[in-house]
Amino acid sequence: MKERYFDDLKVGDRFKSEPLSVTEKKLIEFAHRFDPQMFHLSRNRAERTIFKGLIASGWHTAAMTMRLFVQTLNFAEGAIGLGVDELSWPNAVRPGDVLTVETEILDVRLSRSRPGYGIIRLRNVTTNQRGEVAQTMLANAMVPRADGGAAE
Amino acid sequence: MKERYFDDLKVGDRFKSEPLSVTEKKLIEFAHRFDPQMFHLSRNRAERTIFKGLIASGWHTAAMTMRLFVQTLNFAEGAIGLGVDELSWPNAVRPGDVLTVETEILDVRLSRSRPGYGIIRLRNVTTNQRGEVAQTMLANAMVPRADGGAAE
Repeated sequence: MKERYFDDLKVGDRFKSEPLSVTEKKLIEFAHRFDPQMFHLSRNRAERTIFKGLIASGWHTAAMTMRLFVQTLNFAEGAIGLGVDELSWPNAVRPGDVLTVETEILDVRLSRSRPGYGIIRLRNVTTNQRGEVAQTMLANAMVPRADGGAAE
Repeated sequence: MKERYFDDLKVGDRFKSEPLSVTEKKLIEFAHRFDPQMFHLSRNRAERTIFKGLIASGWHTAAMTMRLFVQTLNFAEGAIGLGVDELSWPNAVRPGDVLTVETEILDVRLSRSRPGYGIIRLRNVTTNQRGEVAQTMLANAMVPRADGGAAE
């Protein structure tokens, strides 16, 4: 798979990830480690909550989104997250759901402090198999330039 | 441990979590699942990056922060995340670091759509053992009222 650099991206570029399935086992495992609340932990307890069943932690959805984003964009030397805004979870993620992430590049600029890098601003929208939005977010990330900034 | 309801909180309340240690094993394990980039995956490869060593995924830090927040606030029936803003990672988290989370309640109001719930706005600041800030965020969460809104 092609490795990507800052220089390969322009505003308006869109990318769609492969699908990722959410199993009950993984959903519960994540919750035990990181978000031990009753609507994430067990089917029985979750049925008595306002969600009427198990749902994934929003942070699990965020982590799965990162996985799909990293695989799809495949930055040479990686993407360094600088910050995230407007992170929200409009629809619950449930066991059996299949998530995909669509990435849109909103802005690209050179880094002022690190000549070998550029800063990209992007929107990641995570949807389930019915096209319902499970998560949206805006992010800034620092990614390496193809020539390491040597042409400056 | 006392279970907390919306009614127990007021603007300006602050809470400090127990400490949580970040092991190299867990850091790498999270990265393999959710953020497979070279500065998160192996000590050798991470040493050749700008971080000069292994660092935790920001989403791992976010997930550990959720764990500490959930344990500390201990909401009866749980806290439902509505959205997050200004999530950032000012200092890298490395193996051996010990994280604590400080929560400040910024706003409290009743839910308009769900009488049994209130909405809180909070800031979570995650610091390491040297007092350096590893993560900051603002969040809105929906939490149950003690009387289920019956007094309305």
